Amino acid sequence: MELKTEILKITAGGKRIAIIAEETASQLGVHSSDRIRIAHGDQQIIAIANIAAHFPQNHIGLYEETAETLKLKDGEAVDVQLAPLPESLRYVRDKMHGKRLREQDLKTIVKDVIERHLSDVEIAAFLTALEIHGLSLGESEALARAMVETGKTIDFGEAPILDKHSIGGIPGDKTSLLVVPIVAAAGFTIPKTSSRAVTSPAGTADRVETLCPVNLSVDEIKAVVRKTNACLVWGGALDLAPADDLFIQVEYPLGIDPLLLPSIMSKKKAIGATHIAIDIPTGSGAKIKNMTEAHALASDFVDLGTRLGLTIQCALTFGEQPLGYAVGPALEAKEALATLMGDGPVDLKEKAVTLAGMLFEMVGAENGRQKAEHILSSGKAEKKLKEIIEAQGGNPRIKPEEIPVGAAKAELTANEAGRVLWISTEDIAQIAKVAGAPKEKGAGVVLKAKLGDVVKKDAVMLEIYAERSSKLEAALELAKRLQPIVLSRKTGQMLLDRVPEKIAGEKSFTLER
Amino acid sequence: MELKTEILKITAGGKRIAIIAEETASQLGVHSSDRIRIAHGDQQIIAIANIAAHFPQNHIGLYEETAETLKLKDGEAVDVQLAPLPESLRYVRDKMHGKRLREQDLKTIVKDVIERHLSDVEIAAFLTALEIHGLSLGESEALARAMVETGKTIDFGEAPILDKHSIGGIPGDKTSLLVVPIVAAAGFTIPKTSSRAVTSPAGTADRVETLCPVNLSVDEIKAVVRKTNACLVWGGALDLAPADDLFIQVEYPLGIDPLLLPSIMSKKKAIGATHIAIDIPTGSGAKIKNMTEAHALASDFVDLGTRLGLTIQCALTFGEQPLGYAVGPALEAKEALATLMGDGPVDLKEKAVTLAGMLFEMVGAENGRQKAEHILSSGKAEKKLKEIIEAQGGNPRIKPEEIPVGAAKAELTANEAGRVLWISTEDIAQIAKVAGAPKEKGAGVVLKAKLGDVVKKDAVMLEIYAERSSKLEAALELAKRLQPIVLSRKTGQMLLDRVPEKIAGEKSFTLER
Repeated sequence: MELKTEILKITAGGKRIAIIAEETASQLGVHSSDRIRIAHGDQQIIAIANIAAHFPQNHIGLYEETAETLKLKDGEAVDVQLAPLPESLRYVRDKMHGKRLREQDLKTIVKDVIERHLSDVEIAAFLTALEIHGLSLGESEALARAMVETGKTIDFGEAPILDKHSIGGIPGDKTSLLVVPIVAAAGFTIPKTSSRAVTSPAGTADRVETLCPVNLSVDEIKAVVRKTNACLVWGGALDLAPADDLFIQVEYPLGIDPLLLPSIMSKKKAIGATHIAIDIPTGSGAKIKNMTEAHALASDFVDLGTRLGLTIQCALTFGEQPLGYAVGPALEAKEALATLMGDGPVDLKEKAVTLAGMLFEMVGAENGRQKAEHILSSGKAEKKLKEIIEAQGGNPRIKPEEIPVGAAKAELTANEAGRVLWISTEDIAQIAKVAGAPKEKGAGVVLKAKLGDVVKKDAVMLEIYAERSSKLEAALELAKRLQPIVLSRKTGQMLLDRVPEKIAGEKSFTLER
Repeated sequence: MELKTEILKITAGGKRIAIIAEETASQLGVHSSDRIRIAHGDQQIIAIANIAAHFPQNHIGLYEETAETLKLKDGEAVDVQLAPLPESLRYVRDKMHGKRLREQDLKTIVKDVIERHLSDVEIAAFLTALEIHGLSLGESEALARAMVETGKTIDFGEAPILDKHSIGGIPGDKTSLLVVPIVAAAGFTIPKTSSRAVTSPAGTADRVETLCPVNLSVDEIKAVVRKTNACLVWGGALDLAPADDLFIQVEYPLGIDPLLLPSIMSKKKAIGATHIAIDIPTGSGAKIKNMTEAHALASDFVDLGTRLGLTIQCALTFGEQPLGYAVGPALEAKEALATLMGDGPVDLKEKAVTLAGMLFEMVGAENGRQKAEHILSSGKAEKKLKEIIEAQGGNPRIKPEEIPVGAAKAELTANEAGRVLWISTEDIAQIAKVAGAPKEKGAGVVLKAKLGDVVKKDAVMLEIYAERSSKLEAALELAKRLQPIVLSRKTGQMLLDRVPEKIAGEKSFTLER
């Protein structure tokens, strides 16, 4: 049936949606959510029909991206027909009913996700079914491979390629800013791509961006790595395993993350990593709550790595409090730089040399940790980070105190004296976000007391930094309400929290890759 | 944050979606799929944020319905803030993780569905979790009650109110057109609301519409029922249990129907029914495949009815072939009218008097079936249907041959002689739909041979009717390919089907209420 194109002025984020009037839909035999095939000249695409009440008859509303794909101008005629269901929908239903999917089935699903043949509703059903039924290792492998195959890959033309990844979960985790220069300073190649924050106050890309540009092209990345053995770039625009980004869009509102394993591995495989240290922060406020869960996940990572031809080691790390003191892009970059220069928190230093040491031992070195410590204390790692900053287009002479942080500052003080018994990582993250992080790079918090520290009455426990005073006030207000740092009084306080929850409806879901 | 309204010219089918630019979203701290609170004067609503790439900054795109709710004009300023997650999302996640939900949890979900606080992605996750984990009877009851409470109800001010419902599944099932007048002719009240076809070639509302208007208001329905004891109307615009309609929009593309029980019961409860006969067609091509499944479903219907204060009886009926010979709105209305006038297929008559008789016995009559037969054969049921037709605004003097059917006609003939061994109800439905049913009311098929009939070589097995010759050709082509009526040769044919399937990717999912 011939319909007249009406190009809608807005974009639909790549979604293949076409709008038709009710009467037009029934003439086509199309229900809402059915697929239609839209043809124009040599081009044709499948789109999902949205039926609108007041849309003109015999017209089809297309978003700009779709019109571009079809090389269509406003008002031009297209041929529209009811299209059959995509084959992948059968496999989505199979998974719903608990069947184990074959490699080819999962490939078909990933392909249809990439080509936008599956709607968000159908992707939601697939992810929900995966969340409920789980994935076998074979399914994880097939998904990881399919996600790699449907995107770009980078070949650095050498081996080994080292990498480090944290599954996320505690605020202030700026370890990559230390591990990457330590490893590169030892002569190994470590091209680190990272994400920006999704639900946290800072991602590695956000932190690095306060030091130098992170949005590099593949060719620029290769040049930086050739020059410095390393890079610290944003992976989001490189089209590595792009299916994962589409899955994340649906996982985020649902607060589920069933593809954690294949997603991470597909990104690593796409960048050609051969040896990967995976950090699993474990703690009651982290993504992984206890050692049992952490061991299960670690062994799945190692097994999946083997299937994909990758060497994996996992570090189960202490995740009961933020790492270091600073939380927020600029504050964290500042702390990382200071640590490389010899003046930083013990836990951050400890974690960085442990992970770097693990990587050294994975490629055959002995006394990896000692080697990492030496590189850090000798200033070689600092020098390497500055090389990377310069290669990526930043100022290599930057000093920690020159990194701008929010001008508006407030303090949370202790209502009484005591020893720090417990720190809510979720609350700390929430306060930093309300202060403006990660978007406002100077916003965040600095802890002035960590687990076990003795605090006097009226002593500062938390500094809050913001770029706008309205956000500073909101963050301070929230900090006072949440009291994220819990002290034990001398008499020994046992109450950690009250039920029902202090604040209802807050989102505390971690989705970071 | 203050944003300028841009009213989008299209409707979003009631979905509460607001479009904002990426930069505006990050200033608000909003991710795609997050909720925002939009306030204008005294009005405020919660909408789901869609983030668009090329949308102007500091603007918010709202669909017409949303703008109306907020009493907004194009270009006016609104206040926009990040809104907390709806409480119901927590229960959706609980159900995902296998928890049994409490009455209050399900009420909250249904309320948020009605108020459009849950997105389609979240509703899809909920329905998928229900499909996988199932519903307890208590959950079904709570859902049915919540669906009734969030819609309108009709009170006819008398009791008992009888009703009849088929869960659907075989084409040609025009039983309601006989049961309703038989029951009403006996002096009982039976206000029948029906749906239009969703995935089948005809719904009861589509059939009746070839005889008289079916889109009546509640007041008009009450007047018709006062006059005739009955009605045969479309229930879709009466706002009875409207949550169900929103669930169906998501169930349809997923091909799942986890809410069958509470949906049907909520519609019946909303119209004030007290005694309900439920027809469960059972057969390999029907929705319910075998007697075990049928008995389980029937006992759930009876139990749920008891919990809701309704008297239920279920009829498990033969569902291995279409009912009667005609399939398609006008062809079926014609057959039903002829049957009321004394000249119709045995199976249709049999099913109608059985169901009407069941209803009579449910309200205390003896020999219900005999009573129904008498009303049918005496012409009282025919007279009653004509009264209903007249009261609803149709022509009561209409004769079967005056109901217009498609002018284009084709025949499928037997390639060889034999006895009818098997009829594919799914294929019959598909052929009728390709011919144009249900939208083109004169389109459909008439079977010329049913199970057990002896057919000569070249005899007509199927007549196809269409309103357009292009659709007739497509339907005949499909019929030849599918061969929906399978004959046993004298030697005894055993092959019913071939694997892999004859035609891949066809949709054969029944979703009718």
